[in-house]
Amino acid sequence: MSPINDNPLFPRTTPESPRNLSLNVKPISVSSEDSKDCTFCKIISGQLPCIKVFENDEILAFLDIAPISRGHTLVIPKTHVSRLTLASPSVMSSLGSVLPQISNAVIQGVGAEDFNLLQNNGKIAGQVVFHLHFHIIPRFKEVEGRGGGRLRISKEESEKIGKGIRAKL
Amino acid sequence: MSPINDNPLFPRTTPESPRNLSLNVKPISVSSEDSKDCTFCKIISGQLPCIKVFENDEILAFLDIAPISRGHTLVIPKTHVSRLTLASPSVMSSLGSVLPQISNAVIQGVGAEDFNLLQNNGKIAGQVVFHLHFHIIPRFKEVEGRGGGRLRISKEESEKIGKGIRAKL
Repeated sequence: MSPINDNPLFPRTTPESPRNLSLNVKPISVSSEDSKDCTFCKIISGQLPCIKVFENDEILAFLDIAPISRGHTLVIPKTHVSRLTLASPSVMSSLGSVLPQISNAVIQGVGAEDFNLLQNNGKIAGQVVFHLHFHIIPRFKEVEGRGGGRLRISKEESEKIGKGIRAKL
Repeated sequence: MSPINDNPLFPRTTPESPRNLSLNVKPISVSSEDSKDCTFCKIISGQLPCIKVFENDEILAFLDIAPISRGHTLVIPKTHVSRLTLASPSVMSSLGSVLPQISNAVIQGVGAEDFNLLQNNGKIAGQVVFHLHFHIIPRFKEVEGRGGGRLRISKEESEKIGKGIRAKL
């Protein structure tokens, strides 16, 4: 066994466990594909809290509550859509246009050089919350955030990380 | 050892091999960060061939020559930029706006339901070609494309896959 666990956001399975996609994932919530019970819609409406790093009329970015590296951020459209193929060109144009700025703030805010952008569509691809979201995952020279499970970061530390990212926007 | 190799596009490392990011990758080319020797700029200019699936004034999409699943497609801006944080909001607006259409054609073309969108920035994050590119990676119910190395697909079969995707655009 490798000392490093598989990355829960990029699923791999064996033929014996085709649905075993969520090892080491601390689940946020498994949402249905509509907006009624959608965790991210509740964050947008303020029913659920988040550590916000960016917001405009159409897009919201906030820290993942179960990050796989420091600064792990989610970028979502405010209009509910479950997956990329159902998003309008207009929404994706808006989301695309802010990704460079948000990504830059995230990596500068946590002192990373490199990062992955990841977006999962469907259960087979490892999607857990069925509201379109892009993961920005900072990668560090040290091991953190590469191949490991979720990190445990205190609320206080998360608030500091969020503040550091917002300061770079 | 797991019978399934780690996914080469989503690097994980051990403390002993922090640079060992390319296991099982059949490298296309390691490019410098400028455009002079950039493999993708050569594809855009026609100096190198590709199996094209989409093109407009600003964006090109073509099959990955070392796919990790059937239909594995790369979407790139025609203007050279090495990573997402250096892309202009305008370029990323254009690229974002065509992602739903291209992704939809890719999964329909190969009969997949789900897929991952992945974009790596920097060596630590597993970037090999230093021209901004988005991977569209179809995920199937069967094991193909999940956790495995690169597939071997004949040129003839690749041409068929490309034709199938173009037919869905």
